[in-house]
Amino acid sequence: MKPMPSTVIRNVRPLGGAAVDVVLHDGRISALLPAGSAAPELATLVDGQGQLLLPALVESHVHFDKTLWATPWRPNSAGPTRNHRISNEHTVLKDFQVPMAERAGPLIEHCIAQGSLYFRSHLDTQTVWGLKHVQEMLALREKYRHLIELQLVAFPQGGLLIAPGTLALMEQALELGVDVVGGIDPAGIDRDPIRHLEKIFELATRYRRGIDIHLHDLGELGRWEIERIADMTEAMGLQGQVVISHAYSLGAFAPAELMPLADRLAALGISIMSCAPPNVSVPPVAMLRSRGVNVCSGSDGIRDAWSPMGSGDMLERAMLMALRFGWSKDEELEMAFDVVSQGGARALNLQAYGLDVGCQANLLLLPAENIAEAVVNRSPQRTVISRGQVVAKDGIFLVA
Amino acid sequence: MKPMPSTVIRNVRPLGGAAVDVVLHDGRISALLPAGSAAPELATLVDGQGQLLLPALVESHVHFDKTLWATPWRPNSAGPTRNHRISNEHTVLKDFQVPMAERAGPLIEHCIAQGSLYFRSHLDTQTVWGLKHVQEMLALREKYRHLIELQLVAFPQGGLLIAPGTLALMEQALELGVDVVGGIDPAGIDRDPIRHLEKIFELATRYRRGIDIHLHDLGELGRWEIERIADMTEAMGLQGQVVISHAYSLGAFAPAELMPLADRLAALGISIMSCAPPNVSVPPVAMLRSRGVNVCSGSDGIRDAWSPMGSGDMLERAMLMALRFGWSKDEELEMAFDVVSQGGARALNLQAYGLDVGCQANLLLLPAENIAEAVVNRSPQRTVISRGQVVAKDGIFLVA
Repeated sequence: MKPMPSTVIRNVRPLGGAAVDVVLHDGRISALLPAGSAAPELATLVDGQGQLLLPALVESHVHFDKTLWATPWRPNSAGPTRNHRISNEHTVLKDFQVPMAERAGPLIEHCIAQGSLYFRSHLDTQTVWGLKHVQEMLALREKYRHLIELQLVAFPQGGLLIAPGTLALMEQALELGVDVVGGIDPAGIDRDPIRHLEKIFELATRYRRGIDIHLHDLGELGRWEIERIADMTEAMGLQGQVVISHAYSLGAFAPAELMPLADRLAALGISIMSCAPPNVSVPPVAMLRSRGVNVCSGSDGIRDAWSPMGSGDMLERAMLMALRFGWSKDEELEMAFDVVSQGGARALNLQAYGLDVGCQANLLLLPAENIAEAVVNRSPQRTVISRGQVVAKDGIFLVA
Repeated sequence: MKPMPSTVIRNVRPLGGAAVDVVLHDGRISALLPAGSAAPELATLVDGQGQLLLPALVESHVHFDKTLWATPWRPNSAGPTRNHRISNEHTVLKDFQVPMAERAGPLIEHCIAQGSLYFRSHLDTQTVWGLKHVQEMLALREKYRHLIELQLVAFPQGGLLIAPGTLALMEQALELGVDVVGGIDPAGIDRDPIRHLEKIFELATRYRRGIDIHLHDLGELGRWEIERIADMTEAMGLQGQVVISHAYSLGAFAPAELMPLADRLAALGISIMSCAPPNVSVPPVAMLRSRGVNVCSGSDGIRDAWSPMGSGDMLERAMLMALRFGWSKDEELEMAFDVVSQGGARALNLQAYGLDVGCQANLLLLPAENIAEAVVNRSPQRTVISRGQVVAKDGIFLVA
């Protein structure tokens, strides 16, 4: 990568603290100086106007390959069950006129303009698509590599064991460079939970990749599966490499009942991803964090055949999480922000994330007094800096 | 009122239908003509650019008098219970440096800029404030009378029977021109439900006003109170004049159990106001509507001592309601929109509301293909027309 020119952002308040000048060099934060003291020679200047400086947001769970973004409105046509939704998606996407790159690409740019620069996108890996979703998303990862970190997960949307050929596709996806091994409802969809988990843990070990499992299974069943995921994480030495996405079952128990499991998740470095949807039970985020469990969040689908909802704004996601739990104190709103920033960085094992010297110069600047106000207001006046350069402003993606 | 000049909005799609020109005269819709056919002579022209035309939104439940809007961020300092929140509010507001007009006024203008032109604001009427909140909000109602319809409710935040002097204050508020008689948790707060209801129904009858009761009481208790409200509505002949706000208790029962009560509410024209918060049980909106019960919605508090949350955007409220219930079909998103438009108009007994010839020219124009997309996208590019004139654009209030 060619060396980036130096940039100085003058007069910004990191995380709401005292105003500083931030010097960016070679795509990193190279110095934090008292406001007004940075020498501007040879540097691109950004006037921070005393705004709040945040690390770029982390979108830890999205399905870019499924989106209908940037296409005309399409009324949702899915039936009521998950199987209806899966088959409806086949119908909608298989002959869709607009190629994925012209849907997912604009959505990625939209998400960047909201302030997200780190993403984990799950790729629908099943025989009905072959490697189509994988290859098209790998091409998009390449296209946006200079701006964002985009982790790709090959996940068996239609089941792994019940859908012959899927395991081979997942292997091919990993060979092609997909980053993470996905799984889905080892009991509820695949109907053989131990075999399912053995397969994906074996893949992860063989390819030295992390794991991210969609787990919608509810109540005792879901909790039992989480225990089994913990068993295998421990047995295979994959501490710090496993994310359980959704984990609705954790919302079915009183906090006291969950303590031992929470402590175990914390000890194994297993992260929980929750979008905190308001219409189902959800993991008790504050309690999990209080026991040391890392929690991250994501948009899940954004305007796709499953649901037309979603804005791709991770500050809005933090607000929705706060609403979901009735959080209103500053420390609670800061917790919601932590979930969409440091929590995501931990789950995705991001390197050099944050606002310290040496961190990647991936930044979000917006008018707010502090983190709590940023979460509540979700100001659209955002300046997004990737690798030291302004890439979006006021919701507009600026890179040609 | 002096006659308004004529305005023609060219090329807009009412509720997502075919493009028309809309002719506005004397603050009313005077004609809907095929697009391109309206004669522009002597008229102010607004280029609708094929955008979606909606009636202005209805904010059916807000607490303007409590807001800290347009003041520096203040961390929430309330304790955990409702009584803590009430006493905390006294502490926060009693010596607040910024007068109410400089908080509620900017918030009203902000809400107008989001597209709401009809409001029902509850006034905290208790002896600790005397008539202060009432008088200041009456002055604001006067200030914005040329732009909005603002209904005021005198409600006994601190209880009616348990707080001697409150009833006299409420009477004075009604004498001064407050529109609606409020009540609050006749059992849970006032501890004598029948006497509480008798008092407020007596006031409503004597002053010929409607009723709007805050009802947070849960489960069987809340449902029993709703039945008693229905009894008194029937006995006093106040059909179509009563709103029950929040009514969380209706969320505690299976739909089948609620059918007889729902049918009774429908027959008596009692509206339910729900903000559809995600952290408590809420009335089953779709089921209530399917039985003919009118449902409206509101922001409740917006950045106040109770909670820093709230944007004042009733399209966002419709989105939040849809999320709350997992709505994703166009007809479901249209239902959410109906709640923040026609549902509010019915609850508030608004005259000449809508997009028909003869209706008030209170309109919202925004880029969306249809109502469903408007709810999902909540575009900030909004043009707001009050009584035939553009009063806000792209979130900026334009009236000097």
